[in-house]
Amino acid sequence: MAFGWIDEQDRARHRAGLVRVLRPRDAASPLLDLASNDYLGLARHPEVVEGAVRAARTWGGGATGSRLVTGTTALHTDLERELADFCGFEAALVLSSGYTANLAAVTALAPHGSLVVSDAGNHASLIDGCRLARGTTQVVGHADPDAVRKALAGHDGPAVAVSDTVFSVDGDAAPLTGLAEACREHGAGLVVDDAHGLGVLGDGGRGAPRGAGLAGRDDVVATVTLSKSLGAQGGAVLGPARVIDHLVNAARTFIFDTGLAPAAAGAALAALTLLRREPERAARARAVAVELHGRLTAAGLDAVRPDAAVVSVRAPSPEGAVRWAADCRAAGLSVGCFRPPSVPDGVSRLRLTARGDLSGEQIERAVRVIGETRP
Amino acid sequence: MAFGWIDEQDRARHRAGLVRVLRPRDAASPLLDLASNDYLGLARHPEVVEGAVRAARTWGGGATGSRLVTGTTALHTDLERELADFCGFEAALVLSSGYTANLAAVTALAPHGSLVVSDAGNHASLIDGCRLARGTTQVVGHADPDAVRKALAGHDGPAVAVSDTVFSVDGDAAPLTGLAEACREHGAGLVVDDAHGLGVLGDGGRGAPRGAGLAGRDDVVATVTLSKSLGAQGGAVLGPARVIDHLVNAARTFIFDTGLAPAAAGAALAALTLLRREPERAARARAVAVELHGRLTAAGLDAVRPDAAVVSVRAPSPEGAVRWAADCRAAGLSVGCFRPPSVPDGVSRLRLTARGDLSGEQIERAVRVIGETRP
Repeated sequence: MAFGWIDEQDRARHRAGLVRVLRPRDAASPLLDLASNDYLGLARHPEVVEGAVRAARTWGGGATGSRLVTGTTALHTDLERELADFCGFEAALVLSSGYTANLAAVTALAPHGSLVVSDAGNHASLIDGCRLARGTTQVVGHADPDAVRKALAGHDGPAVAVSDTVFSVDGDAAPLTGLAEACREHGAGLVVDDAHGLGVLGDGGRGAPRGAGLAGRDDVVATVTLSKSLGAQGGAVLGPARVIDHLVNAARTFIFDTGLAPAAAGAALAALTLLRREPERAARARAVAVELHGRLTAAGLDAVRPDAAVVSVRAPSPEGAVRWAADCRAAGLSVGCFRPPSVPDGVSRLRLTARGDLSGEQIERAVRVIGETRP
Repeated sequence: MAFGWIDEQDRARHRAGLVRVLRPRDAASPLLDLASNDYLGLARHPEVVEGAVRAARTWGGGATGSRLVTGTTALHTDLERELADFCGFEAALVLSSGYTANLAAVTALAPHGSLVVSDAGNHASLIDGCRLARGTTQVVGHADPDAVRKALAGHDGPAVAVSDTVFSVDGDAAPLTGLAEACREHGAGLVVDDAHGLGVLGDGGRGAPRGAGLAGRDDVVATVTLSKSLGAQGGAVLGPARVIDHLVNAARTFIFDTGLAPAAAGAALAALTLLRREPERAARARAVAVELHGRLTAAGLDAVRPDAAVVSVRAPSPEGAVRWAADCRAAGLSVGCFRPPSVPDGVSRLRLTARGDLSGEQIERAVRVIGETRP
């Protein structure tokens, strides 16, 4: 029977305790949220919401077509100009999600005959970009500029190194300066995914590339998401104007996808306006992360020192992690639970978001619940 | 220099007259729109816009995380239930775009050792799904159930045939009944992309699979987009509950992407409510297409007989197509212009959307402008 093979995979997942289920939330959830990627607590900020409302009323419910046909509104252009300016790049291109932005950047910048050097801890969307690209991919050890240098040295022709700036699972930062040096030595481009850096790292949340002095360089391209710190949806590629023009002509997930909905573009633009006015929001998220890590460690938990606003706590097993997260939930705390196959190293963990708008009392409560429910 | 190779590609594009540029539109465009995919004219319908507004105010500017973490709201669940019910399938899964929905469906349903039989005219997102899938892809001639049958006969193990229901470029329909028979004979699944069928084909716009009596079968999966007839953004996979559960566990573009923004989900849900109340909207779009085709043919133009709400008109050359579309635009008419590499057969054409809300006077004006500007 068609799709009969699915049942065997399903049974195997049940045996391994790895079945994923969707858990719809209510608009007025009583849970304390340390699970989302809403790093600055902006998704429900009145100005961000009104940015979405105004855009929907002005432009309609959808973009109505590919960005190359009817899907580019003046709002998209405004958002692109503001994103580029805020993050310090020459130009920007907005796509419907961070996933499609990463597919666009990697596939368009890794043509036939090229080499892509990819960090072993990269996000799924970068990995899929490598798999779709016509170039050859070489995976190198995590956060290792020397390995990147060695890989680039063995190749003749166009090359890029690809890395997250902040790795989603453990929240550790990439060695951006070292990666940029390795790339420059070999005339290679550097493509970094700043999904977890924008809004948190760099002066006023302008992102990790700007923080490392790499924004605006002619050999650096960054991708960002509008769905994390900016509380909206969508993704963008930032870089030299000629790279962005090239993507408009060559990136399939840009050319053949409907443009980002106006409401999402409007929400993201409102969030950027807020961030310019209140740059302390970024520093506050980093401070919450440091406080959270300190308290967890003091409570005897195995937490990874945060480089941005993600704090990861190791769990003894996949089943233990699932039970731990469920017990937190029962005690009123929502935490992320990462386990195979979503973790590159096979280590299950709780993943906590150090939201910039958490109060001292909320941080204390979160640490207490996590400590009391540890498996 | 890094990215230096881009300049040569750029020069080649200029020489070939194939440079694409973004043309932002204003909210109050004076152009008559026959270029968007807003088949029913719902993107700016007050009820659809208010669906977006209400959702943004209730849920915020974004979904805040993966659907598996915090990104599933009760609104997503409502939309999935309504999409499945409207189109006649057991279950549905909403993703952030039609592109990611197609990547999810094809990759999750074509495991290692499986065969994917793919129509030569399929959309870029299905092709990329095939390229990402672990199974082997065999491309067969356009709209040819016998070729699908032959390909399936030579394979032992899980298999799916993959096809658009309505092909985007020429607007022709796939032979769904024949494809389903070929699949059933060989125990293969059928995956169809109904992006251009939903809202136009089937009773009251319930889509091509339902129109062909295939909706709800245990061996049929459909993908749809929320960004065309429904005037919003996003995509969905529809199928048997066990297939949908499998996607929740296995589809990387579902697991590792932020959930669809609430405003887009709210807009799509409002559009479905409208379609249930006013089912004649679908028939009207089909009637406009027939009228448009008849008048274009009567004017001596080489238009393809429409099976849905897309009317394609052949142009003599890529340059001719570009000039033709520009001349239409100068005369107040916005039309699509498809040319290499976006067309599988290398034939450039104008692509007209037979929007269901076009008046007789507007159809007449469109045909007059297209005739007067022909190269």
